[in-house]
Order: sequence, then structure tokens, then C-alpha cells
Amino acid sequence: MAAVAELTQYTNTARRFSSEVSYASTRISGRRRLHLRPIRNSGIRCSVTSNEVQAAPEAVKAEEVKKKAECYGVFCLTYDLKAEEETKSWKKLVNIAVSGAAGMISNHLLFKLASGEVLGYDQPIALKLLGSERSLQALEGVAMELEDSLFPLLREVSIGIDPYEVFQDADWALLIGAKPRGPGMERAALLDINGQIFGKALNAVASRDVKVLVVGNPCNTNALICMKNAPNIPAKNFHALTRLDENRAKCQLALKAGVFYDKVSNVTIWGNHSTTQVPDFLNARINSLPVKEVIKDTKWLEEEFTNKVQTRGGVLIKKWGRSSAASTAVSIVDAMRSLVTPTPEGDWFSTAVYTNGNPYGIADDIVFSMPCRSNGDGDYELVKDVEFDDYLWNRIKTTEAELLAEKKCVAHLTGEGIAVCDLPGDTMLPGEM
Amino acid sequence: MAAVAELTQYTNTARRFSSEVSYASTRISGRRRLHLRPIRNSGIRCSVTSNEVQAAPEAVKAEEVKKKAECYGVFCLTYDLKAEEETKSWKKLVNIAVSGAAGMISNHLLFKLASGEVLGYDQPIALKLLGSERSLQALEGVAMELEDSLFPLLREVSIGIDPYEVFQDADWALLIGAKPRGPGMERAALLDINGQIFGKALNAVASRDVKVLVVGNPCNTNALICMKNAPNIPAKNFHALTRLDENRAKCQLALKAGVFYDKVSNVTIWGNHSTTQVPDFLNARINSLPVKEVIKDTKWLEEEFTNKVQTRGGVLIKKWGRSSAASTAVSIVDAMRSLVTPTPEGDWFSTAVYTNGNPYGIADDIVFSMPCRSNGDGDYELVKDVEFDDYLWNRIKTTEAELLAEKKCVAHLTGEGIAVCDLPGDTMLPGEM
Repeated sequence: MAAVAELTQYTNTARRFSSEVSYASTRISGRRRLHLRPIRNSGIRCSVTSNEVQAAPEAVKAEEVKKKAECYGVFCLTYDLKAEEETKSWKKLVNIAVSGAAGMISNHLLFKLASGEVLGYDQPIALKLLGSERSLQALEGVAMELEDSLFPLLREVSIGIDPYEVFQDADWALLIGAKPRGPGMERAALLDINGQIFGKALNAVASRDVKVLVVGNPCNTNALICMKNAPNIPAKNFHALTRLDENRAKCQLALKAGVFYDKVSNVTIWGNHSTTQVPDFLNARINSLPVKEVIKDTKWLEEEFTNKVQTRGGVLIKKWGRSSAASTAVSIVDAMRSLVTPTPEGDWFSTAVYTNGNPYGIADDIVFSMPCRSNGDGDYELVKDVEFDDYLWNRIKTTEAELLAEKKCVAHLTGEGIAVCDLPGDTMLPGEM
Repeated sequence: MAAVAELTQYTNTARRFSSEVSYASTRISGRRRLHLRPIRNSGIRCSVTSNEVQAAPEAVKAEEVKKKAECYGVFCLTYDLKAEEETKSWKKLVNIAVSGAAGMISNHLLFKLASGEVLGYDQPIALKLLGSERSLQALEGVAMELEDSLFPLLREVSIGIDPYEVFQDADWALLIGAKPRGPGMERAALLDINGQIFGKALNAVASRDVKVLVVGNPCNTNALICMKNAPNIPAKNFHALTRLDENRAKCQLALKAGVFYDKVSNVTIWGNHSTTQVPDFLNARINSLPVKEVIKDTKWLEEEFTNKVQTRGGVLIKKWGRSSAASTAVSIVDAMRSLVTPTPEGDWFSTAVYTNGNPYGIADDIVFSMPCRSNGDGDYELVKDVEFDDYLWNRIKTTEAELLAEKKCVAHLTGEGIAVCDLPGDTMLPGEM
């Protein structure tokens, strides 16, 4: 009886909110699931009996999870609008799609997203996890652990291997990993193909204002491919992750200056997330002073600093025996937060974005890490008041040249003709094995 | 020059707070480190020059980390009192010691602790990481990742392999793992020895009000051994983790009832964290109603429910390919939070604690999971208004018998005579491989 009463409340609550967003049950008749999802322009069709609900757990056994994106376990049954009402600040569910969801970076990231620390403690979220056939069982394991963690804001978890299913209505697409390579495939080729597939899928089914953050390497050029295959999504919405590099640069500057890392600001990573990346100490500040006024050791800045930032991942793998999944996940959280919270006055953050219209004179039509500010609405603007000297500009030109070469290498995937590839091997992202 | 100004500020700030807690620099002369740590009854002896600070990074290379607990990297240089002042809510640094710090559970847990989500966003913390000779390099990797994550509240990280060093002044001791076993050692014997070593070390050097949470299996009896070897610490301060079991039980009840898991309350895990554990559906509530009024399927409650909770870890290992480190870490966070935030009115949480003086008639002198409430000061009280029926009580007696047998088995480690061992194999904790 109690279950019936509760379900009546759901229905009433859903009605109450129907002016904002309509909800409908899905798959109840076929598989006895009560899965309330926002469906535009749809009426309420939720009606289940106490018997159906109690029978449901049998009907949603993990074994039944098929290859298309499906809700998982408790998340199929229980989207609870009443809880939102109780928070007194109803917010529309935010859909976050994550590729490579069974990997170690995601294993850290998903629990951070679910805890509310990224998008806020009044923001219900849905996690849509993309894996491969090989990782589907592991994805179920991830979903089970999310269930067991009882995160109050986590309202839906679905898993699948088809990006056209998993990216449906995605407000965020975090492209952490990719499919494992098949026999005879080069790693770079595979990543490229994923960039194309993911771009087309996002173009077809994601929210028209989806924010896309590419972590899988080579992330800048993967983001470019993804963007080129998603013409219906603003180019500005595509990012490649250079925040871990920024965080590492801040830490090294703090260590050198003997200050806590929160005193270091205005650090830009310019260019490619690769060994040509340019951690900018010319514009960076320590206690609001130019770095060069605090760290007088120019040799260290010019010769050691960049190397320390670039090689940090490798040093870590050697020490730790695995790659830096935890700090990579933290930097993804930082990157997302930087877009949904206003940037502190006078500061900025680094993210690799589309160069068209940039004020620096960097070549158009590549994805290049640059200094940005946001007012917290998910959008950003490039920072104008930065300076360049010969040292900095020469390095920027080197990383720009690398990205232009990478672009030629994937022309067949961006619809720009025949690929001409003349590249050194790509760098591994921290977090990849 | 800027560095000098900054350091002068540190010193002034430290002086300002000296009535609350005194600070002194350590190891500056020998190794050029500026490592400010609370030292009782000590004056201010901090004085460094800009040169020393700038030279410091060379002096604290990872390679130099020795086998005793030492500050790591940026955390050696930069304990920054000014930042606390800026938060306008100065709080004394909380020292959290973690054993098994290089393992996967810790890899999730440490980042949660550092982020502030456990003890609060105005609570600076120090992490003291205990590993083994074998894992020391990995510990450095963890410390590097913590550096790279730029957590503003994380003010000190030290690593070491001697519990007498690492547990110094610990306010929390989270005993996640233990030393790897040597040749010819049984796992149970090893864990017992660690319980004894850790207990003696805590007794000698930890805060007199340290809260100890034992996760390494067999966790109830390990907690008992630890407690018996630490007579100077209140017995009430020792806990063994059964919160993951509670969370899993809540999830299974929610799934069965077709409600979101936040509607399930008053779930007790009674007894041992093992296959004899008793998830209590008699006193549990769903939407404030007794579970039995919501879930009419008594057969499921009596025959399947407990089994689902007990076997969840095994199912997960099978699916996920590794054990459930992430959800274990979440449950440790839940367990800590339950002691530092007031328990919601009418609800309770499960934790395995010392039975002396319990109101239920459970045997004295074991560590037994029971329902508790806290007013948020780190302490707890046992809940009195619970009921028992024959089914529940018989199961409680079974898990009690197992714990009494385990106690006999470790009598040599608790100072209670000659061990008599007649036990089935111990169970694995979720998170152990």
C-alpha cells in the first residue's frame, strides 16, 4: 500500500511540474520499468501498480542489459521528482555522457560527478556511460558501485555501447576513452575514427548546446575531428583538456617559489596537449606579481620548468606503477567547474578551443589551448590582455605547426580532402596505459 | 623580494594565532625545508631567506624521501597560515593518517578527503600516508598526484613506513590496508600482527582522542586487537567499517520496493563484517514505514535480501574485474561524516564498535556493528529503541558467536592468554583482491 501511495505522489508531483518539463514513463509495459525521463511535448503516462513495482527488480536483472543504452538497476525504477521538490530548488536534470566509462579516469570522475561537487549540490544528474562490447560487464560493475553509493543527486544511470543511444540529449559529453583497437589497427587511426563517430553521433542526438570535452589523445586534434563532424553544434562548445598541464605548471611554480599553490594564478598552457605544449611563465603571476619578479632563475624557467610539466606524467607512471587517473579526473572536474562558475576576477584558465577569431594571431581552424574566462553560463571568452615575447611566441609557433600538421594528417576525417601525414608519434595522455 | 614579503606575512600570521596553537619550522637548517607544523608549547622559530626558499625545490627531490614519515614536495614548503586567515574561519589542522595508502581504496579516499567533502570546506587537513617498503615509490606517486590537484585545504602530505612516525598526532587513523605478507605468513596472522602494531603505535603517538576506523579484514577483530593494544585511547573511539554493507542493504531494499534509495532509513547492519552479518529489515523503514509494510514478500526478505547484500562484493569483482574500491571509499566517507555531522532526526547509522555496556544483551568485549547516532562531535551513542524478533535475534547470536570465536583466536595479541583458533576462513573485504 505504501508503494502505491508513494507512486501516486510521484504522479502528482510530475503533474505539478509539467509546465516546466513533461515526463513520461518508458518501457513499463514491455519490461515493467518505471523510468521517468524528460520527454519534450509529451503528457504524463505514468501508471504502475504496487505489484508491478515490486516485481520490477526481477525484471531488471543485470544479466538482461542489452547492447543499447539502458537504465541500470535501481535507476530504472526510481526517478523521484518529489525529492527535487523537497530541495525547493527544482533544476532540470543534466545529462552527462562519458565515453571510456569503464576506465580508471572515469572510475574517479563518475563518482565526483555523482557526488554533486562538480555541478552543485542542488543539481540532479543522469550519467550515460559508453563502453565497448568488451567493457560492458565492467560498466555494469561501475553502475552497481554507483547504486551502492546512494548519491542523492544521481537520478539516472544508463549504459551502452552505441554512441547514438548514449549521447541522446547529452548536455555534456566527456570523451575520456575510445573503443579498443581491432586487429591490425594503429592507435592513432582508431582514435581518429572515434573522433569522427563521436562527432556524428553528437551531431545527431545530443543537446544542441552540448559541451564536449575531449580527453582521449591526441585530444586537440580529436576535438577538431569531432567538431568538424558535428556542424549543428557550435564550434565554440568543443574543448580538449589541458587543465592537468595547467595544474601541474602551477604546482611546479609554487614549489620553485616556495609558496602554496593557491598563490599562483594566470597560468596559460598554449597549444597542443603534447610535448610541444607551452606553459606560459611570462603572463603567470605569483601573489599577483609577474612570475619573473618572484622567480629570478630564468634558466630554470626557460629550460627546466616546461620539461617538468611535460614529463610529470611519465615520472608518475614510473613511481606509481599506473598512470595518473585520479589527478586527471580532478583536472576534468576543474575544467567543467571553470565553465559553470564565474572565473575569479583577474584570473583565467586554460582550455583548448577552436582558434577561429582568436586575437593572438594564432592560425585559424585548429583546436589550441588558450587563456579563457567564463561568467559561469557554460560559455567562455578568450582573454585579450596577455603579452608575448620572442621566447614565448617562438614556442607558440612550434606547437601551432604541430597542430597544423596533425590537421593535415586527419583531413579525410574532417571532410577536407586527402590526408597527408608527416608526424612524430603522438604523446600519451596521463591516465592512459 | 616578493617571496620574502610573503614569508614575513606567514610569520606574522603564525604569531597572531600563537595563542591557539604554536608553530615552528622543522628541518630548515638541515635540509632547507620550510615545514610549519603545530608543535605544542613551542615558540616561533621560523626564519628563512628568499634564497633558501628558492633553493628548496632542489633539496626536496622525491629521490631523497627516506623511510620515515616526511613531508612531500610542495607540502614541505608551503604551509600557509594566511590562507586560513582569509577564510575567516580559522580551524586547527586535522591530521588524518591512512594505512594502505598506496592501494586502490585509498586512491579514491585520499582525494575525497583532500577535496573537503568529508570534513568540510573550511577545514584544512594534513594527510599522513603509511605504506610499506615495497609501496614507498607508489606513495610518492600518490603524493605527486595530490600536489598536482591543487586542493586548497590540503596543507601537508607526509609519507612513511613506520606507524610510530606516521601516526604522530593523528586525529583520525584510517586503517585501510596493511603490510604485505612475508614468506610463509598466513594472511590472518599478518593482519593480526598489524592490528597489534598499529594499536601500540596509536597508543604511543596519536592524539588522545584519535578516531580509529578499521577497514582491513577481518575488520571487527582487527579493531578489537588495535583497541586492546591502545589502552590510553578510549575504547569507544575504535570503529570497524560496516557502512558499505549498510549502503548496499539500503540499495537492495530500494530496488525491491521501487523507491529511490534516499527513502530508505534506519537500516542496521548487526555484528561482524563477514558472511554472518545481519542486515536488519525488522527495524528498517521505507518512507518512514516499517519495511515489512512496504515489502510484503517475506520470503525475499528472509532468504534473498541478506544474501544479496553479502554477495554483492563478489558479484562486483566478477563483473568489474577488480574489487569495489570506489564505493568502499564512498562508504568510508559516509562513516566519517556520520561522526562529524548530526544524525538526521529519527534515523541512525551502522558502525562496528565496542560492545561493553550495550543495551541489547550482546556479549561484552567484542567489536560489533550496531545502530548509532551522533550529535556531530565525533562521538556517538547506541540507539535504544530497536526491536528484535526470533528471526533477527537468532541471526545476531550467530554473528556474535563468530566474533567470540575470532576473539579467542587472537588472545595472544590482545594480552588475554593463549589463542585457541577454531574458525572458518575469513571473508574478503570489498576492495581487497
